[in-house]
Amino acid sequence: MPNKTITAPKGFIAAGIKTGVKLSKSLDLAVLACPNGAKAAGVFTTAKIVSPTVNVCKKHLKTKNINAVVINSGNANACTGHKGFNDAVNICNKLANELNIDPRTILIASTGVIGHPLPIKKINSAMQNIKTQLKPTIKAGLDFAKAIMTTDTVPKSEMIALNIAGRKIKIAAAAKGAGMIAPNMATTITCITTDADISKPMLSRALKNAVGQSLNKLIVDGHQSTNDTALILASANANNKPITAPGKDYDKFYDALEQLCLKMAYKLAQDAEGAKRTFTVFIKNAATKQQAQKAARAVAGYPLFKCAVHGADPNWGRIIAAIGSSRVKLNENKMTCTIGQTLVFKNGSPVKFNPEKVSAVIAKKHHKITVDLAAGRFSDYCIGCDLTKEYVTINADYHT
Amino acid sequence: MPNKTITAPKGFIAAGIKTGVKLSKSLDLAVLACPNGAKAAGVFTTAKIVSPTVNVCKKHLKTKNINAVVINSGNANACTGHKGFNDAVNICNKLANELNIDPRTILIASTGVIGHPLPIKKINSAMQNIKTQLKPTIKAGLDFAKAIMTTDTVPKSEMIALNIAGRKIKIAAAAKGAGMIAPNMATTITCITTDADISKPMLSRALKNAVGQSLNKLIVDGHQSTNDTALILASANANNKPITAPGKDYDKFYDALEQLCLKMAYKLAQDAEGAKRTFTVFIKNAATKQQAQKAARAVAGYPLFKCAVHGADPNWGRIIAAIGSSRVKLNENKMTCTIGQTLVFKNGSPVKFNPEKVSAVIAKKHHKITVDLAAGRFSDYCIGCDLTKEYVTINADYHT
Repeated sequence: MPNKTITAPKGFIAAGIKTGVKLSKSLDLAVLACPNGAKAAGVFTTAKIVSPTVNVCKKHLKTKNINAVVINSGNANACTGHKGFNDAVNICNKLANELNIDPRTILIASTGVIGHPLPIKKINSAMQNIKTQLKPTIKAGLDFAKAIMTTDTVPKSEMIALNIAGRKIKIAAAAKGAGMIAPNMATTITCITTDADISKPMLSRALKNAVGQSLNKLIVDGHQSTNDTALILASANANNKPITAPGKDYDKFYDALEQLCLKMAYKLAQDAEGAKRTFTVFIKNAATKQQAQKAARAVAGYPLFKCAVHGADPNWGRIIAAIGSSRVKLNENKMTCTIGQTLVFKNGSPVKFNPEKVSAVIAKKHHKITVDLAAGRFSDYCIGCDLTKEYVTINADYHT
Repeated sequence: MPNKTITAPKGFIAAGIKTGVKLSKSLDLAVLACPNGAKAAGVFTTAKIVSPTVNVCKKHLKTKNINAVVINSGNANACTGHKGFNDAVNICNKLANELNIDPRTILIASTGVIGHPLPIKKINSAMQNIKTQLKPTIKAGLDFAKAIMTTDTVPKSEMIALNIAGRKIKIAAAAKGAGMIAPNMATTITCITTDADISKPMLSRALKNAVGQSLNKLIVDGHQSTNDTALILASANANNKPITAPGKDYDKFYDALEQLCLKMAYKLAQDAEGAKRTFTVFIKNAATKQQAQKAARAVAGYPLFKCAVHGADPNWGRIIAAIGSSRVKLNENKMTCTIGQTLVFKNGSPVKFNPEKVSAVIAKKHHKITVDLAAGRFSDYCIGCDLTKEYVTINADYHT
C-alpha cells in the first residue's frame, strides 16, 4: 500500500497517542517531527479571539527552521486566559525536552471544546518518551490524522507526487474539521508536509494562495473558530534545485499543492457535521471577483437552501433569494440559474423543467449550481454541504 | 372577549378568505379596508431581488390616502418576471373594482414559495364579492391573521390601547414569519392598524424606528427574503388632536407602537420554524452602537450556539467564539459573559459554575445572555431562537 499520509514525504516522522483528554479514550495528541529541520509557513483564523496556540505558532514561525508540530484534540485551549497561554508554552517546552530541540522550533495547535482549561498534566505525562513512538510509517501518519479528529467521522489524509526537474517530490496533508467551517481563513486544522526544497517566502506564498483556492472556499456553517490553522513544513529531502523564486518549478509545486488542498476541502465538506451531500456554487459574470465570491458564499451558507439540498428539493427560488439578499450587483432581467445541466431560471423568469430529474441531480453525492449574474465578467466558486438533522444532534450536546 | 386584532382600531374592516392557492385549502388571502382612507407608511426588504408587490407597494404609498391592503399567502410572486409584475397590478385592479376605489390606494404583499407564477385566476375569482365579507369583527381580524400564515403554526395578532390627551387610541398588528428572518429590514409581513390621527411623515418615522427596535432585532436564520414588508395604516377615527410633529403625543404613540412591534417580534421568535426556545443577547460596553448590534447578531445567528441552546448546553465558548469571529473591538482580558444571572466567563478566563443550574436556565422558554466587551460604552441587543431538527424537516421539503 503506498503511503498517502504526512509521513510519505521524506524527512518526517509522526505519531498519534492517547493522553486521556478525550473522554472517548481515542487518540488525541498528534506529533510530527522533522529532525533535520524544515522551512515552514502557516495560515490562521482571522477571528479576534484566538487560542493562545495561534499566537505561539505565529511567534515560532519566525524561527528559521521548524523541527516539530504538536496538536491536541478534545480541548481547544481557547478562552482559557493566562493559564491557556502558559499551557501552550508548557507543551512546547515538554516536547522540546523530549526531542532535545529548541521549543521555538515547535508549532502547536489545539482543537475541541472551547473554554475549558487544558488538563496539561495528562498531556505532558503522555508525551514522556514520545521520541520512541515517532515513526516514518503509514501507521504513524494515519495515527497523526486520527489524533487530530474531533467530530470528524473519518481521518483525512491525502498525498500528491510530482516531478520537478527530474526529482520526485511528495506533498501530503492531514486535516480535521467538521463544523465551524467558513471561508476567510484556514477554516480547520490542516498539517501539510513536503520534501521539496523551497524557500520560506515561496512556501508562505504557495500556502496562502492554495488555502485561498480551497479551504477558504468551503463553507459549512458560516463561522470561523478560535483555532483554525493550516501549517506546511518543507524538509528539502527531495534534493530538488531549491525553489526560491516564481517560475516553472514554483508553478508546478503550487499547482500540486492547490490540488492537494482542494482534495482536502472536498474531504472536509463530505465529512461536515451531519452532511450527506456536497455542492459547488459557481457564480459567473459578476461585477468583481469579490462580488462573485460574496454571491457564492451567500448561497452555500444559506440555511434554507442547505435544507432544500438535504431534501433534494429543486427549490431554486432560495438560490435567487440568497443572492438577492447578498446585495451584489446583478441584472435581474438577464440572470440565469442552472442546477446540474438543467436551466431553471432565465432572464428573470422561471423556466419549466422536470422537477424529478433535477431532484435526482441534487440527490447525488455532489452537484453543481451555476448562476450567471449578467453584471460583469468575474467568476468565483464556493463549496458547500447540506444541513441535516444530524448537524443539530451533533451540536446540541457537544459540550458535556 | 376584547378585540386584539387589526379590526380593533376604529375605521377598519377585514377578511381572510380561501382562494385555493394553498394546497392545504386553508385561508390564503387577507384583505383589510379603511373605507374613509388612512395615512400609511411601509418598511421593506433591502434585498436586491424583490417581489413586484414590494415595488407596487412603494409606488402606491405615494398616494395621499390608502383604502385597502391585500396579502396572499402560499406564493411569494417573486422571481416571476414580467408576469409577476402584471399579476400584482391585476390583483390591485380587481380589488379596486370590487371596492369601487382607486387601485393606487391599495397596498399589496405576497408570501410563500418563490419562483412559481401566481395562479391569478384563482385569486381574482375568489375576490368576487369580497366587499360583503369585509367586517369589523374579531373573527374577521383573526381570519386576516390566519390568511397571511405560511409555515407559522399560530396566527399572530396583538393590540395596545393608550390615551393621548384624553382620547383612547388603539394600535393593532397582524404578522407572519417563521423562517428567512434576519435583521436589516422588516423581516416578515406585518400589517399594523391604528385609529390615531397622525400625519404621514410622523407615521413613517414612527414605523421605521419601531421596526428598527423590534423586528430588525430578530434573527431566525440570518436571511432576508424577497417580500419582507411592514405596513401601518392610520384611520384618524380616534379624533385625537392630530400628531404632526415630535413632542409628548408623538412620544406616547411611538412608545406604544414600539412595544407592540416588540411583542410581535417575540411572537415571531417563539413560532420560528422548529424553534423550541428563544433568547435575547445583550451586548454591553461596545465601541459603537453598530458594533454592539454586530456582536449581538453574531451570537444570535451562530448555528453552533443555536444548537447548544436547543440542547440546553451551557456552551458559552461558542458565544465568545461567535463574538471573536464578528471581529468587533473587544478587550479580551476584561470581557465577561453571563447566562441568565450566572457569570460564566470573566476577564478572559472561564469561571467555575454549576452547569446543571445554567442548563436549567437555558431550558426555559426564554433566557438572556449578557456579554460585556469592555471596549466602549454602547449597548444593543438581538432576539434569537434555537436551531432544531424540526427546522431542517420543515425546510428540506417545503417546495413541493
